Amino acid sequence: MIDFSDFYQQIAKNRLSPWLTTLPSELEGWIQDNRHGDMPQWLRVLRKFASYESADQVDLKTQVACQYDQPLSAGLQTKLENLLQSFHPWRKGPFHLHGVHIDTEWRSDWKWDRVLPHLSPLKGRYVLDVGCGNGYHMWRMLGEEAKMVVGVDPSALFLMQFETVKQLVGRERPVHLLPLGIEQLTPSHAFDTVFSMGVLYHRRSPIDHLLQLRDQLTSGGELVLETLVIDGDESDVLVPIDRYGQMRNVWFFPSAKALKLWLEKCDFVDVRIVDECVTSTDEQRSTAWMRNQSLPDYLDPNDSSKTIEGYPAPKRAILIAKKP
Amino acid sequence: MIDFSDFYQQIAKNRLSPWLTTLPSELEGWIQDNRHGDMPQWLRVLRKFASYESADQVDLKTQVACQYDQPLSAGLQTKLENLLQSFHPWRKGPFHLHGVHIDTEWRSDWKWDRVLPHLSPLKGRYVLDVGCGNGYHMWRMLGEEAKMVVGVDPSALFLMQFETVKQLVGRERPVHLLPLGIEQLTPSHAFDTVFSMGVLYHRRSPIDHLLQLRDQLTSGGELVLETLVIDGDESDVLVPIDRYGQMRNVWFFPSAKALKLWLEKCDFVDVRIVDECVTSTDEQRSTAWMRNQSLPDYLDPNDSSKTIEGYPAPKRAILIAKKP
Amino acid sequence: MIDFSDFYQQIAKNRLSPWLTTLPSELEGWIQDNRHGDMPQWLRVLRKFASYESADQVDLKTQVACQYDQPLSAGLQTKLENLLQSFHPWRKGPFHLHGVHIDTEWRSDWKWDRVLPHLSPLKGRYVLDVGCGNGYHMWRMLGEEAKMVVGVDPSALFLMQFETVKQLVGRERPVHLLPLGIEQLTPSHAFDTVFSMGVLYHRRSPIDHLLQLRDQLTSGGELVLETLVIDGDESDVLVPIDRYGQMRNVWFFPSAKALKLWLEKCDFVDVRIVDECVTSTDEQRSTAWMRNQSLPDYLDPNDSSKTIEGYPAPKRAILIAKKP
Amino acid sequence: MIDFSDFYQQIAKNRLSPWLTTLPSELEGWIQDNRHGDMPQWLRVLRKFASYESADQVDLKTQVACQYDQPLSAGLQTKLENLLQSFHPWRKGPFHLHGVHIDTEWRSDWKWDRVLPHLSPLKGRYVLDVGCGNGYHMWRMLGEEAKMVVGVDPSALFLMQFETVKQLVGRERPVHLLPLGIEQLTPSHAFDTVFSMGVLYHRRSPIDHLLQLRDQLTSGGELVLETLVIDGDESDVLVPIDRYGQMRNVWFFPSAKALKLWLEKCDFVDVRIVDECVTSTDEQRSTAWMRNQSLPDYLDPNDSSKTIEGYPAPKRAILIAKKP
Repeated sequence: MIDFSDFYQQIAKNRLSPWLTTLPSELEGWIQDNRHGDMPQWLRVLRKFASYESADQVDLKTQVACQYDQPLSAGLQTKLENLLQSFHPWRKGPFHLHGVHIDTEWRSDWKWDRVLPHLSPLKGRYVLDVGCGNGYHMWRMLGEEAKMVVGVDPSALFLMQFETVKQLVGRERPVHLLPLGIEQLTPSHAFDTVFSMGVLYHRRSPIDHLLQLRDQLTSGGELVLETLVIDGDESDVLVPIDRYGQMRNVWFFPSAKALKLWLEKCDFVDVRIVDECVTSTDEQRSTAWMRNQSLPDYLDPNDSSKTIEGYPAPKRAILIAKKP
Repeated sequence: MIDFSDFYQQIAKNRLSPWLTTLPSELEGWIQDNRHGDMPQWLRVLRKFASYESADQVDLKTQVACQYDQPLSAGLQTKLENLLQSFHPWRKGPFHLHGVHIDTEWRSDWKWDRVLPHLSPLKGRYVLDVGCGNGYHMWRMLGEEAKMVVGVDPSALFLMQFETVKQLVGRERPVHLLPLGIEQLTPSHAFDTVFSMGVLYHRRSPIDHLLQLRDQLTSGGELVLETLVIDGDESDVLVPIDRYGQMRNVWFFPSAKALKLWLEKCDFVDVRIVDECVTSTDEQRSTAWMRNQSLPDYLDPNDSSKTIEGYPAPKRAILIAKKP
Repeated sequence: MIDFSDFYQQIAKNRLSPWLTTLPSELEGWIQDNRHGDMPQWLRVLRKFASYESADQVDLKTQVACQYDQPLSAGLQTKLENLLQSFHPWRKGPFHLHGVHIDTEWRSDWKWDRVLPHLSPLKGRYVLDVGCGNGYHMWRMLGEEAKMVVGVDPSALFLMQFETVKQLVGRERPVHLLPLGIEQLTPSHAFDTVFSMGVLYHRRSPIDHLLQLRDQLTSGGELVLETLVIDGDESDVLVPIDRYGQMRNVWFFPSAKALKLWLEKCDFVDVRIVDECVTSTDEQRSTAWMRNQSLPDYLDPNDSSKTIEGYPAPKRAILIAKKP
Repeated sequence: MIDFSDFYQQIAKNRLSPWLTTLPSELEGWIQDNRHGDMPQWLRVLRKFASYESADQVDLKTQVACQYDQPLSAGLQTKLENLLQSFHPWRKGPFHLHGVHIDTEWRSDWKWDRVLPHLSPLKGRYVLDVGCGNGYHMWRMLGEEAKMVVGVDPSALFLMQFETVKQLVGRERPVHLLPLGIEQLTPSHAFDTVFSMGVLYHRRSPIDHLLQLRDQLTSGGELVLETLVIDGDESDVLVPIDRYGQMRNVWFFPSAKALKLWLEKCDFVDVRIVDECVTSTDEQRSTAWMRNQSLPDYLDPNDSSKTIEGYPAPKRAILIAKKP
């Protein structure tokens, strides 16, 4: 059921065709590396979704929701809910699938509401979402009538969640998640809009990340970059010595102004800081669908303006830039 | 115009899909290696064929012939003939294209007449033609209603001739020439019938050739092997010390019986010698479309039963075998 | 104890230095592939030989024999014999080590006696022995005062036997076994004499084997080729359909004359057939050091001129050729 | 004359032996890539030095100086000076070679005087100098009795200068320059002291650089890191938007405190900032041996505390850290 042949067929004759020289072997490698562990059990669950036909009613414009004209019975809803819980934890959402409300750790829709007003309209565009997680925002991009949406994220669980949603919403939709890291993609210079949200602070080399994003954009294309930032001016950059908000593998937290400068150094133009805001514990928290610790546990119990390590609490900036 | 995207699109979801992991990069390598020399000029000629629409009347069953309902004028025929002559020399044929009769060096139709009666019907089968030359026999295989015909031959000129014929006959036909050697193909175990005609005596390692052919066959699939042979029993094998009939790069000429044994050693079953015949100078000779030397020049002027090197004159055998 | 650093150090500044670009990684690969199975136990045995100092008296000219000025006591001899038996079966020999007589399956000294009279003197030459087994003939080549002897054979057990003998005879000797196949060696064009004895009939592509041998020879260098042959003329080649004398993985058994022609086709010159003889059951047989089946078991019990499969009993030819 | 066989021979049996699996092919690649351009002429010059025997008197402890017991005549000195000028520009020095005083752009001896007091004694240590330039400091490391000094720097001209000095001082010295980037070296975990001076601000990914340095250190080994810094605290990092002091390819200029934190984040311990100083125009300037622009031209003519781009004038810090 992990089968990328539809994607290959679609790109064979569009502007992504150069990817055919490397993607199939990269993805074959991923499949070989992910045959064990939870995967066999996950694939068994995934196969159970095969009997669901595409939904009759789909809303991707204001939310991610789908259902049949004839709604599922209560019993079938419970069965569906149990299947969906097999892929716990659900981080990005929410999803409304045949009456099942997946209340995810993140209110990713809130982030989308902050991002969307600043974008060039996505209608008719090729869109890449780097670090797409389970693909929540990809559905919203499709809701804006993007021509084709490709997401990359190496996590197997996220792929399971994405394929599940795709089965329910409709397998014919031009949206594809490739379980790869951006560094495995050859430069396509093909996308009209590239998103990187919540990735940069996990990169040991933020400059290389910006250059890789640029390499996927067509000339005149638009980069949407969202990441954790600190307050300060062009030369302020936090590097947490160990964890940040309990996260490992965190490296550079520049100020928004410093990040703007980095983008300009990487030859982006028209760089704009369009949003900065502190993440609230309403936006990120534990739920029935993500029963592990979440943001409230990562903040100093006596001072919510700080993480438990004593760093400034999470603040996120959105920057928009253009490739000349 | 050298563009394999149609092929990639077609195999993405059929039994040849495993080839996607290696073919695009192999073919990209071929394109890079063949950008210079005659290629730019050839591509200019090939582009001139783009204005020809698919023929209305096509016969692939009894010959390779096509024309419009409204035949070309004499003037346009002459123009077409001149364009086709740009790809001199034409070795395999003949072709009848809009009234132009390409009288090739070989009467390849005679070989086809010898081969065809012994084949399992090609209708609905995936067929591979290794060492396909300009693809003459591929059109005849299509005439037998094969589902998909793939040929491999690394020569750039043969590819030009093939693409020209395909443009005239109809680009939508499921027939594809890949300019590669068989050793560049990963084992597909996918073809119902594999042809290797006129290749084996050019291989330094005939056994490896047989194993590579087997690796492209599905279980139960049929191999059609045609090559130069000598008279003799199971242990008779001619290795010409230098050239044979002026050809360089020639290695093993087993007797038909020795070849049968080699096939059995390579785990083929139901091996049959279905034809053996001496090549006549009517079947291979110089023509207006192949103005270089040909078979009559390669035979001893005083004894046509010998090559000018003194070896037995060309005798060819056809063997049919099955992969268990 | 499997450590090729001495070899690397010796070739760094001699004519084999080009091998440094590939050999260390090839050998590292071999070590990784051979860490399991019998290897840990074999290495434990091998380490027990580390306490043996180089022998005082060494004869490599008339046999492979060594001992101390003060011979080992009977008890120590028994201990040594037991250690050596850990590496059963011993195929090539015989060896006389501190009074222990390793009576191997083969009287390899008899083959040496047939080969030696026809060789250009080995004194001062770089010598390569392809398919060297446990290295018996390498010691004899050293006995002829070769400057450096390198053998290749991928078997781990043969490497153990070789390293054992080297420890006893003297680690400082310029003789090295690399556990690789000849196809893993980059062309060195460096050796004065290359031996391939008992290898060719195991090769699926004998022509490629001859070309690989040529690629290791310096211009003017000498090839010594020994293999199983059949009676007959230049076009006689036996290909056993399955086993030959119970051996699997057997392919081409040409007549000596056919083999001479193949060598000439591969651009060797001065090709001579210097010896042909049927292998006797005195030369190859089971012993206390090779307790498995041997030649007498592989022959037709009613007609020793045939193998049990009905092929001609083993006959071996020696050919000498020069690279121009 | 570009021949790394001595190096291979020396490392074959020391702790750097794992490098043999990759270095020879990397260096072969460098040689292939550098056969053209100035190289043939440079090699002709280099060969002219072959007639110089090793110097009788060598001082590497207080300077880099050498001469014969019988000094060169004035005429031979002039000839030597002309040869040495063939390798203009000379950046790191000074060198005193047989009476010729190479007055280089940099007073690298001043930097050494700042570094040396803080080092663990180099006596008997394996030392790696990353970004070694022409190797000036490598000679001073040898003057401190390091056991073996290896430098890496991909520039061909620097290699020429280094090989020239080595020929004059003495080819037998255990000091080697490999024309590679540090990212081409496999982790050796072998060096007792690793220097990286004047490299970090040229790296797009400073964190990866620190990790690569760590991978070359043995446990307990010492890193000596010198780079351009700015004033400020742990979160101050300058990223010049374009050039800095006319240099292109510049990326991160952290404060010394930020750099200390980065080192700790990369698991270095005992991190000390041992020196910080502004580079004077006495230390870096144009000379007869470096006739291009230098530091005085890169500073604001009206305010020498700034570069001509308006950034703080060059300030360099030295940090010492230990690998646990």
